[in-house]
Amino acid sequence: MASKLISIIAGVGPGTGAAVARKFASAYPVVLLARKPESFESLAKEINSNGGKAIGISTDVSDSSSLKNAVEAIKKEFGPDVGAAAAIFNASGGFLRKPFLEIPGSAFQDSFAVSAMGSVLFSQSFLPLLLRGVELKAEHPPSLIFTGATASVKSSALMASFSTGKWAVRALSQSLAKEFGPQGVHVAHAIIDGVIDTPKTKEWLKDMPSEAKLSADAIANDYWWLHTQPKTNFTWEIDLRPAVEKW
Amino acid sequence: MASKLISIIAGVGPGTGAAVARKFASAYPVVLLARKPESFESLAKEINSNGGKAIGISTDVSDSSSLKNAVEAIKKEFGPDVGAAAAIFNASGGFLRKPFLEIPGSAFQDSFAVSAMGSVLFSQSFLPLLLRGVELKAEHPPSLIFTGATASVKSSALMASFSTGKWAVRALSQSLAKEFGPQGVHVAHAIIDGVIDTPKTKEWLKDMPSEAKLSADAIANDYWWLHTQPKTNFTWEIDLRPAVEKW
Amino acid sequence: MASKLISIIAGVGPGTGAAVARKFASAYPVVLLARKPESFESLAKEINSNGGKAIGISTDVSDSSSLKNAVEAIKKEFGPDVGAAAAIFNASGGFLRKPFLEIPGSAFQDSFAVSAMGSVLFSQSFLPLLLRGVELKAEHPPSLIFTGATASVKSSALMASFSTGKWAVRALSQSLAKEFGPQGVHVAHAIIDGVIDTPKTKEWLKDMPSEAKLSADAIANDYWWLHTQPKTNFTWEIDLRPAVEKW
Amino acid sequence: MASKLISIIAGVGPGTGAAVARKFASAYPVVLLARKPESFESLAKEINSNGGKAIGISTDVSDSSSLKNAVEAIKKEFGPDVGAAAAIFNASGGFLRKPFLEIPGSAFQDSFAVSAMGSVLFSQSFLPLLLRGVELKAEHPPSLIFTGATASVKSSALMASFSTGKWAVRALSQSLAKEFGPQGVHVAHAIIDGVIDTPKTKEWLKDMPSEAKLSADAIANDYWWLHTQPKTNFTWEIDLRPAVEKW
Repeated sequence: MASKLISIIAGVGPGTGAAVARKFASAYPVVLLARKPESFESLAKEINSNGGKAIGISTDVSDSSSLKNAVEAIKKEFGPDVGAAAAIFNASGGFLRKPFLEIPGSAFQDSFAVSAMGSVLFSQSFLPLLLRGVELKAEHPPSLIFTGATASVKSSALMASFSTGKWAVRALSQSLAKEFGPQGVHVAHAIIDGVIDTPKTKEWLKDMPSEAKLSADAIANDYWWLHTQPKTNFTWEIDLRPAVEKW
Repeated sequence: MASKLISIIAGVGPGTGAAVARKFASAYPVVLLARKPESFESLAKEINSNGGKAIGISTDVSDSSSLKNAVEAIKKEFGPDVGAAAAIFNASGGFLRKPFLEIPGSAFQDSFAVSAMGSVLFSQSFLPLLLRGVELKAEHPPSLIFTGATASVKSSALMASFSTGKWAVRALSQSLAKEFGPQGVHVAHAIIDGVIDTPKTKEWLKDMPSEAKLSADAIANDYWWLHTQPKTNFTWEIDLRPAVEKW
Repeated sequence: MASKLISIIAGVGPGTGAAVARKFASAYPVVLLARKPESFESLAKEINSNGGKAIGISTDVSDSSSLKNAVEAIKKEFGPDVGAAAAIFNASGGFLRKPFLEIPGSAFQDSFAVSAMGSVLFSQSFLPLLLRGVELKAEHPPSLIFTGATASVKSSALMASFSTGKWAVRALSQSLAKEFGPQGVHVAHAIIDGVIDTPKTKEWLKDMPSEAKLSADAIANDYWWLHTQPKTNFTWEIDLRPAVEKW
Repeated sequence: MASKLISIIAGVGPGTGAAVARKFASAYPVVLLARKPESFESLAKEINSNGGKAIGISTDVSDSSSLKNAVEAIKKEFGPDVGAAAAIFNASGGFLRKPFLEIPGSAFQDSFAVSAMGSVLFSQSFLPLLLRGVELKAEHPPSLIFTGATASVKSSALMASFSTGKWAVRALSQSLAKEFGPQGVHVAHAIIDGVIDTPKTKEWLKDMPSEAKLSADAIANDYWWLHTQPKTNFTWEIDLRPAVEKW
């Protein structure tokens, strides 16, 4: 049975996405979605050589036909009957931190395409597999988890091209939690309120203690904890931040 | 000077939009934006025959070139130097109240196009005129007001195609309030939490007291009140609901 | 009839309370409540000599018997049948902005006594008069308005002795809005997010533009606006801040 | 070292409190606080006979001298140098679900005494032990956890005597999280949104599936999970509800 349950992660950069993939790979085969193969190739290799199973699929979450192809590739790989134990939406559109009147409309368009429409299309693509996971009596309630940010609950000046999409994702997650909770799927939203420690942020906050950045591995543990909550005790939302963070 | 200040209202159906247009027409020439001329023609006529001044411009707020044309038409009518006293975004994308997996992606697309992108493009089009209104020393701080709904703060089951766009609009309004408040533009967001009394809702809540619906005229008064707040006392957000509403 | 409707204001220091009293005195006799007579004497005198009617009553809002005496004094003055058009709770307990472990328990005790219990006892004392105002068919729905602060929605480090009481007041106002709205009483909560321009704050924010502080008179106008909203369009909550405020 | 770290739980009824005590007793000696010995006696016995260590102390959390005695009793038992790994405030004042004007002021007084003042006094009593836990290099960041409820974020009609205290507790937890997080203490608030499955609620929701109630043991697991979060990834707030709960 367990072999029929997979996890899907969209947005597998070197930070949260990769850590989540490694964590869930210890229990399930994982499917890594990213636009460019170089975003998932070495991670898939690493997981496969460590005794897990991972496949990567080049996917544009803002494009419904690209997601349709991903679902087909998954069924080809794992069988038409495959169910999902978890689907994690960790993608975000790019954005410009700029005065509003200097941001081209296309930047908002792109941000909505990935964050807002991407989260919708991702959910529509994988909720059927999560519901199939419910039928397959998955050990833990199949889970749909969205990665949020400070900008999911606070919309600061100059941040509109990011926050508008993130608020839309949060709204989606709340509506889906209410609709699919009673059907056995656990929908959750994590507000990551701080800088995540990744190769990209290595030079940031250098004058702060080493604990001033969020650990991606610890975020992955938190997602796993959400995943293992029983049906009687679902959490919709958690916030996560370093102990020293100002908020 | 006052002759150089106009008000622009997007979304002038027979409810809030029309009431707001009438109210602001008592102080400023008003520009009525709607996709179809039949949405604004009789209203413009009514305002003009009552001693006000109104023009209607067929505009699709989800289309930046359509908005560009609207701005040009406004400058042609009122002069290149025209400023805005108020710009009111009262448009909403259509949506489907349906199980999530039965809603076509295109319905979300349409909803984001009008609510999310529409509010962005509307703001980018008319903030320059509002800032011009600041330069022209408008009597009241030029105001950018967004119409929200219950679904702007609560995302119920089956309502995702509406709430996602509305949360994005609310995020936009908060970011713009923080960026443009210090520049003298008052950005506000009104949460309309209930059924508005319009021809379309005539048959709704018939077993309730007559006061169970919001009055569109009273909403217009509230928008006017927001508009007249001085720079020392800006309100970002109000909620509005009938006294008997359950919430 | 109108002569039977009064307004009661608790907490009439030289800022918001006094401005609200002056504003409501233009429509109703006003009752000024404060612990010490010197807090209301000159204000009552000013209102009475300007053609209004004001009486002051030494009252401790944290003490139910003191409030009982106030109600009796009001009925003696205005008749046993008197109704209230508005009751405004503008009092706050003192607090210490200090590390939590350095704040004596008594400081919390005092803060809860005035903010939390005070708002409860004030509401229990004057809601009967507001409901009487509904029976007397007051022109505007009788209104119970609470003054909140930044700390009503955000609980910062070192501010616990203030914010705990303010959150309790906000909770009270929401519950009462839901219970008494359908009975015709308008319950509202105003979040004053910034420094109010009063004699006490004269030296604050001196390097900022003159508009960096909230105007107490403008707050009073906003309370009046809330008071005049019709039953179809009640606002529970507004926020108020200077255009230049960081938030 | 570990022997010097204890956990303290206030409010150990047969539901959440007892489950949390059992869970934390698997790692630390636990101190059970309740007004009446019968609330903790059998639980302490059970834990002690199962290989754990538990002591009960009759304590009134609304009374600072009673808490002072508790701290002294703890130091006598575990040494003056004792630190705390966790302190969990699970107490709530009684309340009346009644029309506001029928609730005696004393009911609010009692509710504030336990919920609002109780959480303050509990925190002031045990934060020094939690900070001592930081010095003792506890394996997991010492944790101060508050049990909240639906009424901590929503203040319904008739619920004011409960919600006012609960909002105060939530405000306290947020302020303390910001002040003590940087000092190494993890302060968290859990919103329990639903009926907990306890002997007292056995007859409730009988027409619902067995999973319609929260499991107290699962709540305890969630508190334990909060407790084990590293300093880089603190959660301030989680919500917990049954999958079928309407919200």
